[in-house]
Amino acid sequence: MTKAKGYAAITPASELAPWNFERREVGPHDVQFDINYCGVCHSDLHQIRNDWFPGIFPMVPGHEIVGHVVRVGNAVTRFKVGDLAAVGCLVDSCRTCDNCKDGLEQYCTRGPVGTYNARGKDGLPTYGGYSNTIVTHEDFVLHVSDKLSLPAVAPLLCAGITTYSPLRHWKVGKGHKLAVLGLGGLGHMAVKFGVAFGAEVTVLSTSPAKERDARALGAHNFVVTTEAAQARTVKGYFDFIIDTVSAPHDFKFYMSLLRTNGTLILVGLPSTPIELPPFSVVNARRSLAGSSIGGIKETQEMLDYCAANNIVSDIEIIDIKNINEAYARMLKGDVRYRFVIDMKSL
Amino acid sequence: MTKAKGYAAITPASELAPWNFERREVGPHDVQFDINYCGVCHSDLHQIRNDWFPGIFPMVPGHEIVGHVVRVGNAVTRFKVGDLAAVGCLVDSCRTCDNCKDGLEQYCTRGPVGTYNARGKDGLPTYGGYSNTIVTHEDFVLHVSDKLSLPAVAPLLCAGITTYSPLRHWKVGKGHKLAVLGLGGLGHMAVKFGVAFGAEVTVLSTSPAKERDARALGAHNFVVTTEAAQARTVKGYFDFIIDTVSAPHDFKFYMSLLRTNGTLILVGLPSTPIELPPFSVVNARRSLAGSSIGGIKETQEMLDYCAANNIVSDIEIIDIKNINEAYARMLKGDVRYRFVIDMKSL
Repeated sequence: MTKAKGYAAITPASELAPWNFERREVGPHDVQFDINYCGVCHSDLHQIRNDWFPGIFPMVPGHEIVGHVVRVGNAVTRFKVGDLAAVGCLVDSCRTCDNCKDGLEQYCTRGPVGTYNARGKDGLPTYGGYSNTIVTHEDFVLHVSDKLSLPAVAPLLCAGITTYSPLRHWKVGKGHKLAVLGLGGLGHMAVKFGVAFGAEVTVLSTSPAKERDARALGAHNFVVTTEAAQARTVKGYFDFIIDTVSAPHDFKFYMSLLRTNGTLILVGLPSTPIELPPFSVVNARRSLAGSSIGGIKETQEMLDYCAANNIVSDIEIIDIKNINEAYARMLKGDVRYRFVIDMKSL
Repeated sequence: MTKAKGYAAITPASELAPWNFERREVGPHDVQFDINYCGVCHSDLHQIRNDWFPGIFPMVPGHEIVGHVVRVGNAVTRFKVGDLAAVGCLVDSCRTCDNCKDGLEQYCTRGPVGTYNARGKDGLPTYGGYSNTIVTHEDFVLHVSDKLSLPAVAPLLCAGITTYSPLRHWKVGKGHKLAVLGLGGLGHMAVKFGVAFGAEVTVLSTSPAKERDARALGAHNFVVTTEAAQARTVKGYFDFIIDTVSAPHDFKFYMSLLRTNGTLILVGLPSTPIELPPFSVVNARRSLAGSSIGGIKETQEMLDYCAANNIVSDIEIIDIKNINEAYARMLKGDVRYRFVIDMKSL
């Protein structure tokens, strides 16, 4: 086995604390890389708190992982020692269902294997990127360009692909009016991609203080949705809303901002149900859709797109000993726009 | 003014009863036709009972109207006395908004003018087809083929177009697995169109007794959704579900029957909100969409398609004096599959 150390939640009630564990031996198709940086995703906190489903403990979170390859199995062809490498939310899938064959491993009908809080095909728990090293099948390891700031690349592996994928799937671009609901880790990436793809981008927020940042990120418009007069100006206005909010919110109101044939794409995961009057969709042939991260091929495409277009996340680098404080700040929305752990601090 | 007689609800608490009223004079662009048949839609009952919004009373329901032209204005070019003619759910719209220009009068951003329970541009209430005659701008009057049974054409004007339009919009056809949820007035038309368009059609029902009819209508499969073993066989199975049910129902369950990228299209209008866990859409990039009737151009296209393919509604003809009893039977689902009033009985 491969010795590893990291930060784990021992139970759903625990704060994160140092923990030693083991990774599997590097198999013929495996890539081992030492982790330089790992992004901090809101879903890390949801999962250690069992907000969505009962987790596997101890749990080492982290699925925005970048580093340098230190060892490769003898059948590995796509990576060599010294290469930059990354792992996102997935480390395996059935590879045989229609979705896997179509490069949609995130929708693997047998359930993909998550980077942490899951069990691999060997039955052993997977452990995430709040750690010093990781061993992953090369098919689920991504290439990273050395042109970009490495810590600022880390959040692309979840916040990036989660917003890139639906914007590509729904072909959002020139001629479209796109609203980004919520300006956090996901939202700030949605603004960057929406602008890059040529859409007219409006940030919808309840917080007037975010206007300056929104415009700095490239947004063309900013609407404070709690100001009735401002909200009225965008009734029936948008072709798409990408909804990154994971707190409960008023779907009826946001659907009313869509024009005929408009689509609200949910990428946040509120823990309460969506509630929506039937007229909200029927009256203007609107859709409420959802999207989850992206497949491996598309994640590589996104990373390459970011390298070609100089797109990274806006980040604040933290030491791992401050992770619990970072969670508290994240809950208050006090992060612009993603915490990234510098793994040298481990 | 033009004298007319019909059946009206005088108040939201009234049964329908005979009522005399006036239609406008036939203007230069108007077509007057005497009504031979009018279909009975569940929304007629919703509207006279104020289930959705406060109505305009007295109310003459009916928006599945067919008859013979008796008078045309001097600027009318598309109809002459003696022609078959039909009116559906709409009798006017702003004609200037983007949707009207695109032939989507049903989504007119200023609000289309309904055939009844609305006000025309003259400010006067509109009255529907439970009556002997109607005066309508020729742009909202449809041509009907004499190849089809006239009473069985009437329900095409609402139940027909409401199912035809979304199946066309989402390009449902060969290679698609389509579920029809609810086998009533709308559902039985969705089966006929789905089969005609080449989809594999499955009727989802809570009532095993409907299997025989479903298959007679052309459905390839029938699933009793309350039988767990049967329901399991269609988990993640359908590309599309057309949801015609207007009673409250379990959207989470039905969404789980969609495959990746699948869409549930709501055409029924439950009076309670849709409730849906975010994972229902996010997990497999599913969509919940809605659709409302169809535009005038598409309604004509649908009528022409039905004439070319010999498609009509399955109906039970009633005398107008039995309308209140018909409503009671409709509420119990005791109709196969649409009541049509023979206006000779008025």
